[in-house]
Amino acid sequence: MSRRKLNIGLFGFGVVGQGLYQLIQGVNYQDAVIRKVAVKDRSKPRSIPPTLITFDANDILEDESVDLIVEAIDDADEAYRLVSTAMQKGKPVVTANKKMLALYFKELLDLQLTTGTMFLYEAAVCGAIPVVRTLDNSFAFETIQSIRGIFNGTSNYILSKIFKERLDYALALKQAQDLGFAESDPTSDVGGFDAKYKAIILAKHAFGIVYHPKEVLNIGIDYLVGDDIAFARSKGWKIKLVPTLLNTQGKVSAFVLPTFVKPDDKLFDIEEELNAVILDTAYSGTHSFTGKGAGAFPTAFSVLNDIRSVLSSQPYLYQKDFIPFEKADLTEVKIEIYLRFKNPQVKEALAFESIREGFIAEGDEVIIGVTTLKKLLDCRAIIYADKSAVIGTGQVDVIKKKLQVSKLISTEV
Amino acid sequence: MSRRKLNIGLFGFGVVGQGLYQLIQGVNYQDAVIRKVAVKDRSKPRSIPPTLITFDANDILEDESVDLIVEAIDDADEAYRLVSTAMQKGKPVVTANKKMLALYFKELLDLQLTTGTMFLYEAAVCGAIPVVRTLDNSFAFETIQSIRGIFNGTSNYILSKIFKERLDYALALKQAQDLGFAESDPTSDVGGFDAKYKAIILAKHAFGIVYHPKEVLNIGIDYLVGDDIAFARSKGWKIKLVPTLLNTQGKVSAFVLPTFVKPDDKLFDIEEELNAVILDTAYSGTHSFTGKGAGAFPTAFSVLNDIRSVLSSQPYLYQKDFIPFEKADLTEVKIEIYLRFKNPQVKEALAFESIREGFIAEGDEVIIGVTTLKKLLDCRAIIYADKSAVIGTGQVDVIKKKLQVSKLISTEV
Repeated sequence: MSRRKLNIGLFGFGVVGQGLYQLIQGVNYQDAVIRKVAVKDRSKPRSIPPTLITFDANDILEDESVDLIVEAIDDADEAYRLVSTAMQKGKPVVTANKKMLALYFKELLDLQLTTGTMFLYEAAVCGAIPVVRTLDNSFAFETIQSIRGIFNGTSNYILSKIFKERLDYALALKQAQDLGFAESDPTSDVGGFDAKYKAIILAKHAFGIVYHPKEVLNIGIDYLVGDDIAFARSKGWKIKLVPTLLNTQGKVSAFVLPTFVKPDDKLFDIEEELNAVILDTAYSGTHSFTGKGAGAFPTAFSVLNDIRSVLSSQPYLYQKDFIPFEKADLTEVKIEIYLRFKNPQVKEALAFESIREGFIAEGDEVIIGVTTLKKLLDCRAIIYADKSAVIGTGQVDVIKKKLQVSKLISTEV
Repeated sequence: MSRRKLNIGLFGFGVVGQGLYQLIQGVNYQDAVIRKVAVKDRSKPRSIPPTLITFDANDILEDESVDLIVEAIDDADEAYRLVSTAMQKGKPVVTANKKMLALYFKELLDLQLTTGTMFLYEAAVCGAIPVVRTLDNSFAFETIQSIRGIFNGTSNYILSKIFKERLDYALALKQAQDLGFAESDPTSDVGGFDAKYKAIILAKHAFGIVYHPKEVLNIGIDYLVGDDIAFARSKGWKIKLVPTLLNTQGKVSAFVLPTFVKPDDKLFDIEEELNAVILDTAYSGTHSFTGKGAGAFPTAFSVLNDIRSVLSSQPYLYQKDFIPFEKADLTEVKIEIYLRFKNPQVKEALAFESIREGFIAEGDEVIIGVTTLKKLLDCRAIIYADKSAVIGTGQVDVIKKKLQVSKLISTEV
């Protein structure tokens, strides 16, 4: 490439797009320039020169002078269309779109292979935390035993307010929305979808496994009530929305659940919109990475790092692709949960194998017992229809060919 | 390079060398093999085939079939001789030797430039934490405002025992030695030298600055007494040995000091032999990385990652070399300390600009006041001769051309 600047075509001018535009100016970045910005809404005032703006995606996709695409729009399907077109045209893509990645991960990875076009997405997972690149670069020879974390700042902010300031869920959500942490439709955040998409991306880099979102259980914090909080508080615990990837002798389980977190857990003190990634490994022990999981500059920081990686020809290495990890049989993954329910069908459907505790809370029945990840995944709809609360206790057993491995994954080594 | 395995020549077969040997077998690493191991002590029994062992460094340095050197010996001067010879012969070097790096950093970096031979040292800083590579890769465009951390597991282990189990210094040191965390001569660890060497390495990657160890103040935990601990405890604080790199508008100060750490500080809960690196940045907020700072496998994990980087031709990028950070004038760095002393000369020499508090503790005088980093550096010998305690309060001001920037760096953002 000659010394002329790299021309960036930017799709979307929301939080990430504006952050990138300002960051490039703020750091006085010499090697790249935003050449064109495609936006949808013609009526919205924009803080950039009108000559930069287009309302037609093709103005970017078909512009030979555009060297690289930054995709930062909301719509996952439209994003996939744009990104795949760009890659087919040989334009490297940097994206922050976790939903697009999770929904079309296999297709996008295949496209990267067949086109040889670089495709980077550090900003899609935990904002500023450089976890994709670090997993990819520094953990090639390490056996990762589990990944847990706080991947969604919005729900963590809400839970922090509930536990620290004793706000109720609705008020804490309202505050998060007022501060711009939560969307007007908060389902993706509080329902655990956003955290799941990020876990799916990490599963590829940690285990070489591509999950479809349908295969991974996500239960959110949306139906937790005062009694669930009070139960946790009475034990000195907190509840966090914890995505988990668990490797049991090469079989990987993935799920997102509200989880009781004890004071000695590294996640206990991760508060408000902070994100964290905890890796337990075979040789090098426990690693923890924390940082800002969202926001204009933290996300743009990761996008800009990916742009630099394109410039210096550093694709992800996907070094786990040749190691035989596989998806666990979910019927073999025994998981202990706290279940608060009204409709006895929920309890029936989950077919508890053992029940450790049962009591009544505000007229609802509560059970703490062991079911399987398969049952939970199959029952998500009736759990939500009942507005049941499901909270993991951190106890997950994987039964395999008479071998039982018991893991209390929240315990520090 | 053909598909034959990379041949490693290993200098030293202590903790790191043995860890690497076992790790390569444990992860069934296919791309490299340890071809020869040079050791000094002919009488020590070794757990490897005698055909691998040599007592003559030249057997490795002059062996054309050796592709890469791993240097893991104790002696910094001898290590420098071996490493520089290897680089001149075009053999890439991976090292864990922080003392050699700090003492000969400029020479080694120059040699890397002139010979074009790759030279990597992730394992030298905080064991398993991939902080050098992460700084190098992901923080190229970020302005780092400060780096603080726990870089020395031994002194942190001792301080943890003192604060948690109320052991006295001598007993805690003895325990650390019995567990293999501390050397028989613990000066490098408890005197803050080891932490300083690591800070010096990070200064290059965070600010493009090369310090000589003589330029950087290190005061250790070796003369803390019960009253110093009691003072911290009475406030609800702990004392940690904290290396600090502080960027005040492009002027960088570096020092290692025992420091009062408050409960809201990310370092407060970093206990025992755990290491931590906290980056405060201009755009992406606060990042924290924690992990095992020492031990055979955690260190070998980093060495093996560097070997992989040699194989895939990924040298460090040193992206801060072209940004005009410079060393602060130490006479302009005002630092508030707790000083417990017997000899009034210590107080006189430090020429306090202001004194906030003064009292008597076990017959010694204690002053909390402001001096300069220059005075502290100049007075290290008389501070040590007096067995004075110096503990930073976390308050550092940098005065520059009538401009005063006040930083309470231990406070969370």
